[in-house]
Amino acid sequence: MAPAPELPTVESSTDSGTGIDSAVHRHVEDVLAGYLAERRAELPELARTFARAVDALSDFALRGGKRLRPTFAWWAWRAAGGEPAGPRADAVLHAVSALELIQTCALVHDDIMDASELRRGHPTVHVRFTEAHRAGGWLGEPERFGTAAAILLGDLALAWADDMFESAPLEPGMRAAARGPWQAMRAEMFAGQYLDVLAQAEGDESEERALGVARLKTAAYTVERPLHLGVAFAGAGPETVEAVKTFGTDIGVAFQLRDDLLGMFGDTEVTGKPAGDDLREGKRTLLMSLGLGYATRAGRNVDADFLRGALGDPELPPQTLTRVRELLAELGAVDELERRIEKLTSSALTALDSAGLADPGATRLRDLAVAATRRDR
Amino acid sequence: MAPAPELPTVESSTDSGTGIDSAVHRHVEDVLAGYLAERRAELPELARTFARAVDALSDFALRGGKRLRPTFAWWAWRAAGGEPAGPRADAVLHAVSALELIQTCALVHDDIMDASELRRGHPTVHVRFTEAHRAGGWLGEPERFGTAAAILLGDLALAWADDMFESAPLEPGMRAAARGPWQAMRAEMFAGQYLDVLAQAEGDESEERALGVARLKTAAYTVERPLHLGVAFAGAGPETVEAVKTFGTDIGVAFQLRDDLLGMFGDTEVTGKPAGDDLREGKRTLLMSLGLGYATRAGRNVDADFLRGALGDPELPPQTLTRVRELLAELGAVDELERRIEKLTSSALTALDSAGLADPGATRLRDLAVAATRRDR
Repeated sequence: MAPAPELPTVESSTDSGTGIDSAVHRHVEDVLAGYLAERRAELPELARTFARAVDALSDFALRGGKRLRPTFAWWAWRAAGGEPAGPRADAVLHAVSALELIQTCALVHDDIMDASELRRGHPTVHVRFTEAHRAGGWLGEPERFGTAAAILLGDLALAWADDMFESAPLEPGMRAAARGPWQAMRAEMFAGQYLDVLAQAEGDESEERALGVARLKTAAYTVERPLHLGVAFAGAGPETVEAVKTFGTDIGVAFQLRDDLLGMFGDTEVTGKPAGDDLREGKRTLLMSLGLGYATRAGRNVDADFLRGALGDPELPPQTLTRVRELLAELGAVDELERRIEKLTSSALTALDSAGLADPGATRLRDLAVAATRRDR
Repeated sequence: MAPAPELPTVESSTDSGTGIDSAVHRHVEDVLAGYLAERRAELPELARTFARAVDALSDFALRGGKRLRPTFAWWAWRAAGGEPAGPRADAVLHAVSALELIQTCALVHDDIMDASELRRGHPTVHVRFTEAHRAGGWLGEPERFGTAAAILLGDLALAWADDMFESAPLEPGMRAAARGPWQAMRAEMFAGQYLDVLAQAEGDESEERALGVARLKTAAYTVERPLHLGVAFAGAGPETVEAVKTFGTDIGVAFQLRDDLLGMFGDTEVTGKPAGDDLREGKRTLLMSLGLGYATRAGRNVDADFLRGALGDPELPPQTLTRVRELLAELGAVDELERRIEKLTSSALTALDSAGLADPGATRLRDLAVAATRRDR
């Protein structure tokens, strides 16, 4: 299973003033660093050793990452009329920064499930604890210790995400309005991850399943619900909420489809991921689903079997990857994906325009959408 | 790592009226079943397959278990003056029932860490999904799928625990007072689990570490913080809170020490666990720590090495278990543990008496304390 992908930042694409607006991701990181330090400090004296383990979690949460979920939520707040500064703005910043701790849990646990060794060029959390066990010459299996530590630290991140969200000094009406999207977002994220794992296990080739995973794991969790949260804080009415959710769903799916294409055809130097990783992991993307469907309907069973054979092949020779790329282009799956990305981006921007949002937030959301779906991102 | 142990119920030991008081655990189960059904129903149509996975989680949460954490919290609420019925009582019942979802996460994840096959006579969650994978003849490794599903479902239980707690219609002052113990409890539980895993890995033989694990994992998470939560809901002042916390800490540790003795000497038919399981798992209990310390200080190095060799031996021949039992008794570790249990129970009950609590809650808390620490429990 691949984690929900990272989106690009577009902090400097428009000039929008000072304070939080000028560098949302840096403000998110500051708030997050402060919160983690505070929670670490209040751990009881008995838990000194655990506090050192928590440092590994903090390192992970504070190192890298585009902070895109809080950024989407922040600009949605601003676009729906939220202030750029002051106590309400600070409370919103605090609450949306908690999204990063949910993502920390998702990534730490995802790396266990995928047995990933590296993330952003550093050892994953479970590997870090596996190595500590090995270096210490401790009792039992190093991998088992590493997995246990990473499960517990991911759990802690999830519990602290809720604590952080709840500790934001929001006005009661703001908190009540945000309850729905906050709850839905977490359930949809776990649902999306599960469907992704299940689709790989079942070898599901349907478009429906591939789109379902994209809808839940990327669109709902990464874009739609963060936006929903932001406009809910600003007290947006049902029409604005619906328009923003449509925008988020369409952009989120388009973003996942672009990610599928980059995962197959992207330049490793640009994407930061080994080419063909999705294929190697057996990820059931819409790209592969369309390719398999077109091959089968055209009676090209040999080609369909070739694609099927490559999917989930941990060795994946370079010439196989090359042939898969050729086939996907030849069969029309690549063009169809481009068409869908274009269509989804267009419907997303129409929904955004209809939402009656204010600048600079509206422009920033448009920039984020375009950046997330373009070929050279 | 062994999970925090289950305490006995003492529902019928005193006659205390009708409604929630008459059967706390049944009311907790009803509220929990209702909440889980509601959350399942609101999962999006796209997540139908996930909803079926959630059924495995609900089965687990609703099957068996003594509901002791909510029961402690409920009687603390009552003992500190909380009403037995009405809107405030219903809100408290709803909030404390969320403790069972934290415990669901803890057990589901703990069973992964321990690679446990069975819990309460049924396959553990990860085994259930491993078997589904195997039965379906799916792609990839069955164990890996089972682990992924159980990690995600445990995460969901933890997220839902927070959602359930937050959705209780508590008055703002009650919610604010409960924030501290709710936050501390979850962090302390993960800290205790981590220390337990670490002590096993490091082969730590110190009394300090064994007591630290008992303090955090059993005393804080299972008794002290649930009690703290209950009296906080009732608006108890700092003196009552301190007295109740002392009671909870001492009883919680005594309870863990009794559990250590039962794990070593208990009758499988009574405890429901294979005799010597703690020993087989390499659990660093105070009982073993004292035994090792006494043997070493008496210059009985052969005996100390024998104990050390048995600790964490997955095979553990019956004659080894018998000899370990003899040694622990002979060295005085068993007597010392009994003395400590007695002392802790006595100091706990003194603290309880000083708290100025009201009946029937005060009596119920005393009954629970006595039941948790007696030899024949």
